[in-house]
Amino acid sequence: MMLELVEEHRCWGGVQRTYKHDAKSIGLPMRFSVFLPRQASFAKVPALFYLAGLTCTEETFPIKAGAQRYAAEHGIALIAPDTSPRGAGVPNESAAWDFGVGAGFYVDATQEPWSRNYRMYSYVTRDLREAVLTDLPVRADRLGIFGHSMGGHGALVLALKNPGLYKSVSAFAPISAPSQCPWGVKAFSGYLGENRELWKQYDASELVVNASARFEAGILIDQGLADNFLATQLHPEIFEAAAKQAGQPVTVRRHEGYDHGYYFISTFIGEHIAHHARVLCA
Amino acid sequence: MMLELVEEHRCWGGVQRTYKHDAKSIGLPMRFSVFLPRQASFAKVPALFYLAGLTCTEETFPIKAGAQRYAAEHGIALIAPDTSPRGAGVPNESAAWDFGVGAGFYVDATQEPWSRNYRMYSYVTRDLREAVLTDLPVRADRLGIFGHSMGGHGALVLALKNPGLYKSVSAFAPISAPSQCPWGVKAFSGYLGENRELWKQYDASELVVNASARFEAGILIDQGLADNFLATQLHPEIFEAAAKQAGQPVTVRRHEGYDHGYYFISTFIGEHIAHHARVLCA
Repeated sequence: MMLELVEEHRCWGGVQRTYKHDAKSIGLPMRFSVFLPRQASFAKVPALFYLAGLTCTEETFPIKAGAQRYAAEHGIALIAPDTSPRGAGVPNESAAWDFGVGAGFYVDATQEPWSRNYRMYSYVTRDLREAVLTDLPVRADRLGIFGHSMGGHGALVLALKNPGLYKSVSAFAPISAPSQCPWGVKAFSGYLGENRELWKQYDASELVVNASARFEAGILIDQGLADNFLATQLHPEIFEAAAKQAGQPVTVRRHEGYDHGYYFISTFIGEHIAHHARVLCA
Repeated sequence: MMLELVEEHRCWGGVQRTYKHDAKSIGLPMRFSVFLPRQASFAKVPALFYLAGLTCTEETFPIKAGAQRYAAEHGIALIAPDTSPRGAGVPNESAAWDFGVGAGFYVDATQEPWSRNYRMYSYVTRDLREAVLTDLPVRADRLGIFGHSMGGHGALVLALKNPGLYKSVSAFAPISAPSQCPWGVKAFSGYLGENRELWKQYDASELVVNASARFEAGILIDQGLADNFLATQLHPEIFEAAAKQAGQPVTVRRHEGYDHGYYFISTFIGEHIAHHARVLCA
């Protein structure tokens, strides 16, 4: 797997890069961003995958979250993929902002015409991970994952479905029970079809019930109470209840006045990275 | 002067807002962004004006610089105006990225057709300041100013031309001697005409020689050495020499590997805010 360097900027003593590579699962070139802390110039470092939300790209997180200073402090690499294939050529794939381009939902689509390229689950867990481990100074045994909204859903699902692969997980305002909200129903119907049994494989509130993946340090979720999508789309209380019932420690912190955007994320990003660092840098 | 609230987000315990208001000097509505720290909810706080560079808007700084956490820590408000009038209707005003829209250069244009609206100097020093002091919990006697590139030029010029108005000043990669670089020559020719005597009124390296404004805490300038514009456009060494000759303390810090962008700014923004806080919060 060859990485093509698209851009590079020095940042907090390390480097912020954008790479492009051929992604086998997707069948198209994909872009992702990487922050490598100074520590990565002399040793392999832990890495934290960040999955972004609807309409975002691989640039959203490095530009808006203010995460690099904390990653520099802890010596952790940050890796942020794009949120869908680009250029698949599916008719009308850019017509909606919550389905298709920018809205891959971190699933492997089974339905035509999406199933050829819309395979973000395999892309993140396999292609991207392998590319990072092969070509960047990252430790395979110290990976964590987090994300926002659609990407919070993605982070929870990928962590729960792959025991041992990600050692730590957290989320900002995740779509916590996608089978039970309009965004999730639309995406799962389109990508996975009408068989709701299949949806359970990508629904964190279902997966957590029988997951063999365990996160002893707990799953950290931050949620703004002025988030316009909280009541209709996010349902953290469903995940919270399911996790508690399953004995998986979870902390949902609810913050008065904070909304769904990156000003919210940037406020708490340092605490998320510290949460991961307690596991990944131990 | 009435402020219209355009948007508001909770951030670092305070609020990040965008306002719109009728700007008398400009003759058009203008937008600016404000971060008010938690401290501003019970007392007036110091404020730091940030002037952005070419092509930027009032949103660039709050989204990309990661400044709020430091402003929250020190209890300082951050105020960032747009970089030019919008909607003046000057023919071809958006044709170039380094002149016209997004490139007001913080001068009061004297040349037709720019002179009617392109009056960013008066806007920032008068309209914006008065609006902020009238309608927001900000202390008139504790104002500082900083900026980036074109806005670094603006910050130095506004501070040097208005003794006592701004108590502290700093800049990231400022256009330090605009009369001697292509960006400045283009802008000054267009806005001010060919009389180079007039240009001196907006050239920090000229102004510092006889300025009655003094900054005893020094002027802090950070400059990346991998900045593509350093050799041709920025010339910090000219300002540095002029300031030293004039007895105005100045510290130009040169950083290996850093470029002209916001990854550079975000790395050092905390140190700039601390520089201002030493004066404004003393």
